Amino acid sequence: MTTIIIIGTGSLARHWFDAFMEHDNLKVVQVLGRNKNALAYYGQTTGTSADLGSIQDADIYINAVRDDAIYAICQGLTIKGKLIVHCSGSLDISAMPAHNRRGVLYPVQTFSEGRKVDFREIPICIESENERDLKFLHGLANQLSGKVFKVSSTQRRNIHLAAVFVNNFTNYLYGIGEEICKENGLPFTILDPLIKETAAKIGEVSPKKAQTGPARRLDTGTINKHLELLKQKSYHEIYAVLSKSIEQTYSEGTGRATPER
Amino acid sequence: MTTIIIIGTGSLARHWFDAFMEHDNLKVVQVLGRNKNALAYYGQTTGTSADLGSIQDADIYINAVRDDAIYAICQGLTIKGKLIVHCSGSLDISAMPAHNRRGVLYPVQTFSEGRKVDFREIPICIESENERDLKFLHGLANQLSGKVFKVSSTQRRNIHLAAVFVNNFTNYLYGIGEEICKENGLPFTILDPLIKETAAKIGEVSPKKAQTGPARRLDTGTINKHLELLKQKSYHEIYAVLSKSIEQTYSEGTGRATPER
Repeated sequence: MTTIIIIGTGSLARHWFDAFMEHDNLKVVQVLGRNKNALAYYGQTTGTSADLGSIQDADIYINAVRDDAIYAICQGLTIKGKLIVHCSGSLDISAMPAHNRRGVLYPVQTFSEGRKVDFREIPICIESENERDLKFLHGLANQLSGKVFKVSSTQRRNIHLAAVFVNNFTNYLYGIGEEICKENGLPFTILDPLIKETAAKIGEVSPKKAQTGPARRLDTGTINKHLELLKQKSYHEIYAVLSKSIEQTYSEGTGRATPER
Repeated sequence: MTTIIIIGTGSLARHWFDAFMEHDNLKVVQVLGRNKNALAYYGQTTGTSADLGSIQDADIYINAVRDDAIYAICQGLTIKGKLIVHCSGSLDISAMPAHNRRGVLYPVQTFSEGRKVDFREIPICIESENERDLKFLHGLANQLSGKVFKVSSTQRRNIHLAAVFVNNFTNYLYGIGEEICKENGLPFTILDPLIKETAAKIGEVSPKKAQTGPARRLDTGTINKHLELLKQKSYHEIYAVLSKSIEQTYSEGTGRATPER
């Protein structure tokens, strides 16, 4: 039986909790968080507390709070020499104080409240300061997901950077698409099959090969007509910068590489 | 029985053909195209010709060639007074000469060779010069897809613009993600569940509400670290421009609107 304490009550904490609960040999003994309303969700099946000082004993402590709160929360805990992990893509393992054994469990996924995700499909990146803890983290992650990756802090930081492009920026482009539809009296759902197919096909075709569109075929006429349609300065700029980059990538004929800055 | 002639043999032509073939009351009587190898695919089940002059009689002619070839191909056809449609998102209905009855059948989807797509899920935008032809196009499109939209040329042009954002640009961001993974010795598949979930959740949560990431929370520290990691000038620029736009959208607190240019 592995005992687990979760610190934090946000969307990520909840997804960890739900995933652990599906395994009989994993036991969440306590959830700690300032938000008493949020604690209610966990209180039916495990111990909860809004007081960090009441922290109990466990095999692993999951620090699932916001990046900028991780260090302070760790400092406020009375535990010493215990295995504690954060779940951040961008922070070093040393973003936690050294009086505990430090590690990372970074799930490469976006978590929204109320949306179930299949944890077995989520890549989990692990990191630790020693082999024994790494083995433990691997065993734990492996029970939740079939996709466990041992990565360095540098690799993890780059995965997070890549995730910003394919998740945060992509979602923002979806939002621009939605706005254009609304402004023209069209339902956003008209783009839904296109969005889904664009995402679905990358498993079969490399994005580099799948690239199409006006910029890919150097269709200046269409590009200029589109730029004219875009009245908002920032969308105009996004369209221009992305089109320029696509043109460069494909006109050089030397792969995606563009000049170093 | 509706008789159909397809002009063109590319990916779009093939997807139309396959979709029509699934309906007993739709008959593709001829496929015309310059590429004799490509014609072979159709030759087993319908008449084919590389000679535009041999065009036969049909209820509708589908001009599925590249945007910049549409006008010239129409000019080269000997038919007059017939219903002919192009399938372009960006071209006006008047992009074809007026000696035929002109229309548009624009499927809002990306077609890749070798990838089956469910045509019943594809939104089809229709447009024509008169009510009778519009009714005919609606009937035809409705047999293939449950999602038929009567749109103006202006609306269609804006759907195409939105499609560039959610398909072409998004795919390019996927490509940047792939490159970052490869440069750091990681498989691109590590981003796959994230990409799929980002696309999947837009049906349930508006992209505006779903927005997360460093720019959304005005996390300048992470943004600057990411910019440092990006050695390629154009990717650096894309990251900066998108982050700036996201920051503007969410810091103004007045919805997505950004200043007019």
